[in-house]
Amino acid sequence: MNHDTICALATANGIGAIGIIRISGDDAIPVSAKIFDGKNLEKAQSHTVHYGFIKDGDEVIDEVMISVFKAPKTFTAEDSVEISFHGSPHIAKKILEVLIKNGARMAKAGEFTMRAFMNGRIDLSQAESIADLIASENEASRKVALNQLKGGITNEISFLRTDLLNFVSLIELELDFAEEDVEFADRSALNQLLDKIEAKLNSLIESFQYGNAIKNGTAVAIIGKPNAGKSTLLNALLKEERAIVSNIAGTTRDTIEEILHIKGHAFRLIDTAGLRETADEIEAIGVKKAKEKVENANILVYLADAATENFSEDIEMIKSLQRDDLKLIICATKIDEVSPTQYELVENIFRKKIPQDFDFITISAVENQNMQDLKDELSSYVEQLKSEESNVVITNQRHFEALGKSLDAVNKVKEAITFQISTELLAYELRNALEHLGEISGEVTNDEVLGNIFSKFCIGK
Amino acid sequence: MNHDTICALATANGIGAIGIIRISGDDAIPVSAKIFDGKNLEKAQSHTVHYGFIKDGDEVIDEVMISVFKAPKTFTAEDSVEISFHGSPHIAKKILEVLIKNGARMAKAGEFTMRAFMNGRIDLSQAESIADLIASENEASRKVALNQLKGGITNEISFLRTDLLNFVSLIELELDFAEEDVEFADRSALNQLLDKIEAKLNSLIESFQYGNAIKNGTAVAIIGKPNAGKSTLLNALLKEERAIVSNIAGTTRDTIEEILHIKGHAFRLIDTAGLRETADEIEAIGVKKAKEKVENANILVYLADAATENFSEDIEMIKSLQRDDLKLIICATKIDEVSPTQYELVENIFRKKIPQDFDFITISAVENQNMQDLKDELSSYVEQLKSEESNVVITNQRHFEALGKSLDAVNKVKEAITFQISTELLAYELRNALEHLGEISGEVTNDEVLGNIFSKFCIGK
Repeated sequence: MNHDTICALATANGIGAIGIIRISGDDAIPVSAKIFDGKNLEKAQSHTVHYGFIKDGDEVIDEVMISVFKAPKTFTAEDSVEISFHGSPHIAKKILEVLIKNGARMAKAGEFTMRAFMNGRIDLSQAESIADLIASENEASRKVALNQLKGGITNEISFLRTDLLNFVSLIELELDFAEEDVEFADRSALNQLLDKIEAKLNSLIESFQYGNAIKNGTAVAIIGKPNAGKSTLLNALLKEERAIVSNIAGTTRDTIEEILHIKGHAFRLIDTAGLRETADEIEAIGVKKAKEKVENANILVYLADAATENFSEDIEMIKSLQRDDLKLIICATKIDEVSPTQYELVENIFRKKIPQDFDFITISAVENQNMQDLKDELSSYVEQLKSEESNVVITNQRHFEALGKSLDAVNKVKEAITFQISTELLAYELRNALEHLGEISGEVTNDEVLGNIFSKFCIGK
Repeated sequence: MNHDTICALATANGIGAIGIIRISGDDAIPVSAKIFDGKNLEKAQSHTVHYGFIKDGDEVIDEVMISVFKAPKTFTAEDSVEISFHGSPHIAKKILEVLIKNGARMAKAGEFTMRAFMNGRIDLSQAESIADLIASENEASRKVALNQLKGGITNEISFLRTDLLNFVSLIELELDFAEEDVEFADRSALNQLLDKIEAKLNSLIESFQYGNAIKNGTAVAIIGKPNAGKSTLLNALLKEERAIVSNIAGTTRDTIEEILHIKGHAFRLIDTAGLRETADEIEAIGVKKAKEKVENANILVYLADAATENFSEDIEMIKSLQRDDLKLIICATKIDEVSPTQYELVENIFRKKIPQDFDFITISAVENQNMQDLKDELSSYVEQLKSEESNVVITNQRHFEALGKSLDAVNKVKEAITFQISTELLAYELRNALEHLGEISGEVTNDEVLGNIFSKFCIGK
């Protein structure tokens, strides 16, 4: 494998107090030493930090701190250097130019992490978890990514793989003694193991729905007639969110969608930017447009004004929007304006006319009544996706696909046993299942898969 | 002075491979040690880096590298810690929350640098140069800021201040012996020193025009009749620039204005985004609008189509736009379409009709002819602003004002000598001059001035 010296900006683009340029490879230390006016880095101990100046010949580029990390105890398992400079993008560019002039080259996307994987420091799913950690925007996704970084998925898989590998050895032993017609591998024990593997795979595969909710958030469409109180509700929900976001300076971010966090999970409020501006929602957009908005939603929160009397339009709209995989929450709004008997009446009307199962909540966004009920309902949708059997959650499409293929292969092995096909074919199907299980941790892989995975990383990681 | 423990994100906002949180203060190390699962940081040596996990109680927040810096050899001259984490803004927020829970507080804007100043590690103009370095977008501004960081301005000033201080001592000695009517301070030598100081101050004050060009760039308005070739010229000029900007990945930036760099200096092309879209420039905008565009420009590049014959409209437009402090460059465009005699003719016409001094350049943006001439002309405008006497360039409004006040004070001292006023008054005026000279390095300062300076810093610096 190539250990040439790569460099890249590792911190976020833009102006910051500090920027970090990372260098890794066989010549990381001598290349850095050539441009550093300070301690002789080649004589520096690992994991030490040194003050000095980056120079291009006689010209001083910046005053910096340089950290030296010696192989193998480094992120890439290669000699590595980090330059901490005054965080101007212009200075970053100048330092990278000087590094390149002195023998380094620009790193490709994900190349540092790819080296960590290629050098055996982390497995493939751990490498992927690093990208997930960096991209994590809420508690749930951070926790899942960190669990994966600590080897969560690989541990579950390698446990299964080891057991299966034992059987493969036994089956292959049978092949060696084919003419003697012996059975080293107990078929019923193998079947039991396969059942166990199948159950585990199914549980991991099922966790992908929760994993998706974690990684991409849960889409919530909020629909209602004009004056049903949508903008008041949205503002009440998002006010707290915005306060949280701006609570700690330096951590705000730009969003196109409005995102609401409840108990560490993200809820994407569909198209609210537009919604909040047009008060005459349903009349303006009609059933067709409302359907489009609900199309990609996991949850529909339908707002009905409890202070009105005729709900036939609302009922008609809800019926036209309902879908089996859409959780429906009907919210009677403005309950501060009516008596409890009135909103009980409203609930009865909806219960009578809407055949689908739904949650009914009464709220007053203005007086902040029962807002927590709505949040709890949203949250319960995500909670029920959680598997009770496993702490490991699949969030990665590639893992999901590899698990599916493994499951298919396991089923083929089971068929092979049921139909008592030849030991050669059984061995083949078992090897196939092992291979798919090995794809997740990268024990079995190829350049194309690796290229695909790491090209999605940012440069500098 | 307060040495409580402050923390902040030090890297740019947004997602990056690495983010850095900086902590400084008396308890920086114990506070960090409390939340770090790894080596005992309180026993770590200064300038060493340690691998481990940030924890909030039992919950792991992230896998990190922590650098420990012990006072006084640190940026703030206090105990300091840097946490390098997986660069997600969400993780940054979590870590800051845990730090605050354990006794740190969020740093105010510029508070780290302010501590470096208050603790005597750097002077005020050096503190200011750090903000300038971080904001530097081109070679010229980087170099000036770096020179200032190395003490450039302070050195020039303190040299003058020391000489002046000697005279103040002598003058004040005279006050002690006032009844004996002796002159310890040689008035003609003092006058000579004052002349020297005055010359130096004038030279520094004059450098502010160049400093401004460095810090804010030179504004260039490009005006011409429809089809004079403006969009071709702009594209030709900016094509190379864009190639440079995108040359090294991870260093691009969003701009509202188009900026062109020539020999390390920035040129801001006024309102080009709009200009390039409307071909019918002058007709559309009229003289009034053209004047508005030229109003804040340092240079007017007027394009005249060499392939046309009637330049009366052009001449009228130029005359209405001309201004004493506006450098005029007339560009005969499309010279690939005409013979040299033709564009000599064009030059003669303009020379005859335009009384103002101007540079005349013939270009073909399509065939990339003489584009360098235009760049050289733009560049020469900035070069002539440079002072030959001093390497130090003033870029800071506060320094400019302090220098102006010092000059006034020096002139008052000279008047005092000329009119032979009392030694008391002379001493007073000298002290006044000394004080203004001391403002730049922060030897003389007050809380309001400091608050004003550091509040403009970003948080984390």
